[in-house]
Amino acid sequence: MKKEYAKLWLAYSPRKNNRDCAALKKIRVAGAPASDRISQSAVSELKNGLSAMLDIETEVLFDSDTAEVRSITSGKDLLEVESYSISLVETGLVIEAGGPAAFLYAAFDILRTVSCEKSIADTYAEKKTHRPSDPLRMLNHWDNMDGSIERGYSGNSFFYEDNEIIIDERTKDYARLIAAVGINGVVINNVNVKDAASYMITERYFEKLARMGEIFADYGIGLYMSLNYASTIEIGGLDSADPLDENVIAWWKEKMAEVFRRIPTLKGFLVKADSEGRPGPFTYGRTQADGANMLADIVKEYNAIIIWRCFVYNCKQDWRDRKTDRARAGYDNFMPMDGDYHDNVILQIKNGPMDFQIREPVSPLLGGLRKTNQMLEVQIAQEYTGHQIDVCFLIPEFKEILAFKTYCKEEDDTVADIISGKTFASRYSGIAAVTNTGNDLNWTGNYLAGANLFGFGRLAFENELSSAQIAEEFVRMTISSDESVIAAICDILLRSREIYEKYTSPLGIGWMVQPATHYGCSVDGYEYDRWGTYHRADHLGIGVDRSDKGTGYALQYNEPNASIYNDPGKCPDELVLFFHHLPYTHVLHSGKTVIQHIYDSHFEGYEEARGLAAKWDTLKDKLDEEIFENVRERFERQLVNAREWCDQVNSYFYRKSGIPDEKGREIW
Amino acid sequence: MKKEYAKLWLAYSPRKNNRDCAALKKIRVAGAPASDRISQSAVSELKNGLSAMLDIETEVLFDSDTAEVRSITSGKDLLEVESYSISLVETGLVIEAGGPAAFLYAAFDILRTVSCEKSIADTYAEKKTHRPSDPLRMLNHWDNMDGSIERGYSGNSFFYEDNEIIIDERTKDYARLIAAVGINGVVINNVNVKDAASYMITERYFEKLARMGEIFADYGIGLYMSLNYASTIEIGGLDSADPLDENVIAWWKEKMAEVFRRIPTLKGFLVKADSEGRPGPFTYGRTQADGANMLADIVKEYNAIIIWRCFVYNCKQDWRDRKTDRARAGYDNFMPMDGDYHDNVILQIKNGPMDFQIREPVSPLLGGLRKTNQMLEVQIAQEYTGHQIDVCFLIPEFKEILAFKTYCKEEDDTVADIISGKTFASRYSGIAAVTNTGNDLNWTGNYLAGANLFGFGRLAFENELSSAQIAEEFVRMTISSDESVIAAICDILLRSREIYEKYTSPLGIGWMVQPATHYGCSVDGYEYDRWGTYHRADHLGIGVDRSDKGTGYALQYNEPNASIYNDPGKCPDELVLFFHHLPYTHVLHSGKTVIQHIYDSHFEGYEEARGLAAKWDTLKDKLDEEIFENVRERFERQLVNAREWCDQVNSYFYRKSGIPDEKGREIW
Repeated sequence: MKKEYAKLWLAYSPRKNNRDCAALKKIRVAGAPASDRISQSAVSELKNGLSAMLDIETEVLFDSDTAEVRSITSGKDLLEVESYSISLVETGLVIEAGGPAAFLYAAFDILRTVSCEKSIADTYAEKKTHRPSDPLRMLNHWDNMDGSIERGYSGNSFFYEDNEIIIDERTKDYARLIAAVGINGVVINNVNVKDAASYMITERYFEKLARMGEIFADYGIGLYMSLNYASTIEIGGLDSADPLDENVIAWWKEKMAEVFRRIPTLKGFLVKADSEGRPGPFTYGRTQADGANMLADIVKEYNAIIIWRCFVYNCKQDWRDRKTDRARAGYDNFMPMDGDYHDNVILQIKNGPMDFQIREPVSPLLGGLRKTNQMLEVQIAQEYTGHQIDVCFLIPEFKEILAFKTYCKEEDDTVADIISGKTFASRYSGIAAVTNTGNDLNWTGNYLAGANLFGFGRLAFENELSSAQIAEEFVRMTISSDESVIAAICDILLRSREIYEKYTSPLGIGWMVQPATHYGCSVDGYEYDRWGTYHRADHLGIGVDRSDKGTGYALQYNEPNASIYNDPGKCPDELVLFFHHLPYTHVLHSGKTVIQHIYDSHFEGYEEARGLAAKWDTLKDKLDEEIFENVRERFERQLVNAREWCDQVNSYFYRKSGIPDEKGREIW
Repeated sequence: MKKEYAKLWLAYSPRKNNRDCAALKKIRVAGAPASDRISQSAVSELKNGLSAMLDIETEVLFDSDTAEVRSITSGKDLLEVESYSISLVETGLVIEAGGPAAFLYAAFDILRTVSCEKSIADTYAEKKTHRPSDPLRMLNHWDNMDGSIERGYSGNSFFYEDNEIIIDERTKDYARLIAAVGINGVVINNVNVKDAASYMITERYFEKLARMGEIFADYGIGLYMSLNYASTIEIGGLDSADPLDENVIAWWKEKMAEVFRRIPTLKGFLVKADSEGRPGPFTYGRTQADGANMLADIVKEYNAIIIWRCFVYNCKQDWRDRKTDRARAGYDNFMPMDGDYHDNVILQIKNGPMDFQIREPVSPLLGGLRKTNQMLEVQIAQEYTGHQIDVCFLIPEFKEILAFKTYCKEEDDTVADIISGKTFASRYSGIAAVTNTGNDLNWTGNYLAGANLFGFGRLAFENELSSAQIAEEFVRMTISSDESVIAAICDILLRSREIYEKYTSPLGIGWMVQPATHYGCSVDGYEYDRWGTYHRADHLGIGVDRSDKGTGYALQYNEPNASIYNDPGKCPDELVLFFHHLPYTHVLHSGKTVIQHIYDSHFEGYEEARGLAAKWDTLKDKLDEEIFENVRERFERQLVNAREWCDQVNSYFYRKSGIPDEKGREIW
C-alpha cells in the first residue's frame, strides 16, 4: 500500500483545549472581499481545520464583499495587504485584514492557536496587529526538471519528473503548508538553469506552469522562476546574450510578452549569472547591473521583479594564491554599482560571504549597499549542516543574522531592518531560503528538519518570535501535545546547532568537509583545491588573515565592525579564525588556547550529540512509531558522523601541532 | 569519416632493410602441422606482413602435416608447445617449433625483426631456442558488460556494449596484436562480476562467447572468464554458495558441463571472492581453498583451471586502529592453506601487498607459498600511475619485481623463477596483467601507454629482455625508424617511471591520491578512511611501522629480507616509509634527511617531467601528427598534475614539519 505523505502542521487531529469556545463559531472579517480566491481558501481552511480539531462548525461573516484590494507595486504595498489583527468581541473573533492574504494569515493564526492548544480567549484578548517583518518571504527550490534536487536530502522533486511538470494534490498541499507559515513567493526551479529547465519559458511548459501559478495564487503565493541568462543563445537562436545588444533586448521583450500572457500569475525571475560556470553579462564586458536592468526594464510592465544573486566569485582560484579572497568577492563585485540597479531589481545576498557554513560573519554587502533593493538568502537545505541526517535547527542562526548591527545608519541598522525595507525605504526587500523539501513522505528527510521549513516561514513573517517559541509551535503542531515530549524535543532542537558547530569546523574557519558531497569531515578536503576555501593550517597555527595585514576583507564592514573584526583581540571567538591566522597557543576570550578550544569543543560536541540521541531514545513509547524511527535512524548516522568529525579534526591538529590535549583524552 | 583504429605493431609499412633478403622468401617449418588453425594464422601473418613491409612473396613449407600436437595438461606442456628456434640455412629460414603456437610466435619473431629493420642474416645466424619464461601469460580485462571499464582510461570496452558482446574485425585484430607479443590467455570480463556479467555462463551469451573463443584459438589464445562466486544464488536460484553444500556442488557440475559444451575453447575461470564486497567461502565459514577446490575439481574434466585471486583484505578498517595492517592480509589469509589447493588451482598474487602503487615491496606470498601454483598479477592499466595521461613506462618496475630474490630456496628463488614454475615444479604458473586497453582508436588512450601493453607481453615471454630493448622495439615498430626520434622516445619511456615516482608519494609510502578516482594528489585523501592505507604523518615524522615493533609485516619475508626490511638502517630508501615510521630528520642511505628527500624528489620530479614534455615537443616535425598531438596534449595535463603533486606534497610536509627546504625553494 502506498503511504500518504505527512500533512505536518496541517494534520489537524482533535484537540482538547478550546472545545467549547463560542468565539470560534462566528468569525467576522473586515478588509477582504468574500469572493476573492484567497478569501475563499481562508474560509475553507478555517472551517475544515476547526471542524477537524474541535468538531465545531464555524460561520465566517464578511463585513463587505466590495472591499477594494489594494494593488501591489512595492514591498510596502505587500506589507499593507498582508497585515491583520484578530480580536475577541462578544459575538466572536474579528479579523481586520489589509486584504485577502492577510485574512488567510489570520485564519492560519487562529488554527495555529487551536493546534497548539493555547487559549483563544487569552491569545486574542488584546487586539494586536500582525504586520509581516519582510515584504518578500520566499522559498527557492533547487529542483531540476529531471526530478533530481541539487543539495536535496529528502528524495526527489515533487515539482518535476522526467522533464515534465507534476501537478497533483500535493501541489496544493504544498501551497497550503507554506502559506500556513507565511511564505508568499516560491522560485520553482534550480538557479542553475540547464537542459529542460531552459525551456520553462517556452510553449512546452506554459500550460502546466499557468496551472501551478493558479494553485499558488489561491494561497497568496507568487510564482517565480529561475531564468537562464543565456536564453537568447540557448533557446533563442541568437549568438549573443549581451544585455546592451538590441537583438537581445528585442528577443527578451517578445519572449516576456509571451511568458506573462501565458502565465498571468507570474511575479518575476531569479537569476544566477556569471557564477560557477553560469553565463552572464561579464562575458560581454557588461556589469551585473547592465544584465539585471535590461531584464527588469522589460518585465516592469508586467509589474514583475528581477531577483539577482550576488554569489559571484572566482571558482578557479589557485590555492597557492593568498591575495585573492573569495570572501571579498560579493562586495568587490556589487558595491561599485550601488545605486545603478533599477527599482524592480533586488539583489539576493547570501547571509555570509562564503557559502552557508555553520558559522560565517554576515555579508558586508548587507549594510554596505544603501541604494539597492536587498534580499537575504539563507539555506534550510542542510548542505553544510548535516544533510538532514544530523539534526541542526537553524532558526537560532537566522536570528543572530537578523539581529546583526551593520552600523549603516544611526538606527534601524540591523539586517532585519534592512531587509524589512525600512532602513533605506527600499521599494522591494525580503528574505529567501533555499528550501529543504523533496518528495519523501515526510517532506524533509529527517522529520525534525521540518522545523527549519516551519521556522523559516514563521520567522520571516514575525522576526520577533524566539527560537524557542518557534520550536515549541512546530512540536506541538506536528508531533505531540505531551508536555514532557515537547520539552525534550525543543531541547534537542534548540541545542542542535551549537552542537553541530562544536563537532565540525572550529572558530568560524568553515569547510573541512568532504568535497562535492559536503557531508562528513575532510580537514584538507578543500585545502589544495580551486574553490577559495582554505584554513591555511601549519604546525604553528591556523586561520585566514583577512585583516588589513592580510586580504583586507575585515575593512569591508562599517565601523566599528571593521575595527572589531580587524583585531584578533576584539574579534569574537566564534569568528576569530575566519578573520585571523593565529598560533595554536593564542588565548581566546574564553581563556582557552585555540588548540585546546579545538579539542574541547570537539569532544564536547560528540558527547553532546550522543546526549541528544539518548534523549530521543527516551521518547520511544511516547511518539508515533514512524516519526520515532525516522529520527532514531538518523541519529545513528549522526553519531557516526560526529565521531568521525571529532576524531579526525582532533587527530589532524594534534598531529600537526604536536600539542597534547590538556585533559589527556584519546587522540589518534 | 569514421577513423580506423590503429594497427600498432601490426601496421606493416614498407621497410628499407632486408628488402633483398632471399632467406625470407622460403621458410621451412618443423613441428607444426600445416592444417592446424594456428599454423594457418602463422602462415597468413608471415605472408601478409612480409609482403607489406618488403613487397616479397614468401613460400612456407611444412616438413610434415602429420606432426602430432602435444596435449596440454600442465604449464610445462605449454612451454614445450610454445618453444621455437629460428635458424638461417642455405635455402632460407628454418623454424623448429614445439607446436603450432610456437610456429606463430616464430612468425611474429621474424616479422618483428623485419619491422625493427634488424638484419635477418645477423639475427638468425646463430640458432637460438626461444622458450617462454612463463607458461601462462595473460591479460585481465576489467571490462563490464555495459561497456564501461573499471579503471579504464582508453574509452569503453571493445568487448561489450549495452550488455551485448561485440564480435567484429577488431576482435580478431586484438587477438593478433596480443598474440604478436606472446600473450596466450585473456580473461574477458571484470573480476567484479555483477549484473549482466553474471549471465555469461548462461544461454544468453554462449553463442557469442563460443565465437570469440574460436577467434582467440586461431591465435593460440585461451579464453577465460571471471566468475561470480555467488552464481548459485544469483542465477541458480539456490539459497547458498557454500562450497561444501551438495546442492551447490551439483549445480556447478551441471552448469560447468553446459558451459564447456557450449564454449569448447574455454580454458578456465578467474575468481575474486571475499574481497571488497564480493561474496566468497568465508561467508559460509569455509576456507579460500574450499572455494577454489570445489570449482577446480568440477572443471578438471574439461582440462580447465581456476585462478583464484589473493586480494582479500578488510576494506572496512578503522583508521584509528594501528594493529590491523592491510599489507599483512594476503599472507595471513593464504599462507595457512599452502598445500591445500588442488593442482588445477592457481593463486593470482598482486605484485605488492597493497594495490599497484608506484612503489611497493614484493608480496611475501611470493616466496612464502611453496606448495601452491602461483601467478603474478601486475597492472598495466595506470590506475595509480597516471591514468594513461601521465607517461609511466612500467616495464622497469616489472623487471625489478621479477628479479626480486625471495630466498625461498638456495637457488632459482626469484619471483621470475617461481612464476616460471621451476622453483617448485608447479603444475601451472605464470603472469597476468590488468590490461590498459579500450575502444579508443589508439587502444590505450595515451599512445605511449601502448608500450606497456607491448612490453608486458614481450617481457612475459622473454624475461631476459631489457627495458631498453623492449622500449626500442615498441618505438621502431609503431612510431618511427628515425634514430634520433627512437632515442628521444626511448629516453622518455625509460625515465618516466622514476619521474612519476619522484613527484608522487615518497619513499614507498604510497597512496596520497584523490580517493575514488586515484588520479591527482590528496595527501590525506585516504588517511582517515576505511581502506587500510595510511601514512601516519604527524609534526615529527611519517611512515607505517611494519617492523617487529609495529605490525610485524616485515617478518612475513624469508631471511635475510625480513631482517633487512625490519631494520630502518638496512631497509632500502625507496621502501623505508613503507616499513618504518621515521622522523623527518632521519638520514637516509642517500645522505639526505627524509624531509629533504621529499622536497628534492618532488622539485626534481616536476622539473624532469617538464623536461620529458619539452623533449616530446622537439619531435613535432618528425612524428605523425596524430601521435604527436595525442601525447603532447597528455603531457600538458601531466605537467598540471605533476605540479599539483609537487606543490601539495611539499606544502603539506612543510606545513606539518615546519622544516624549511635547505635550498630555499618556493613552498606554499
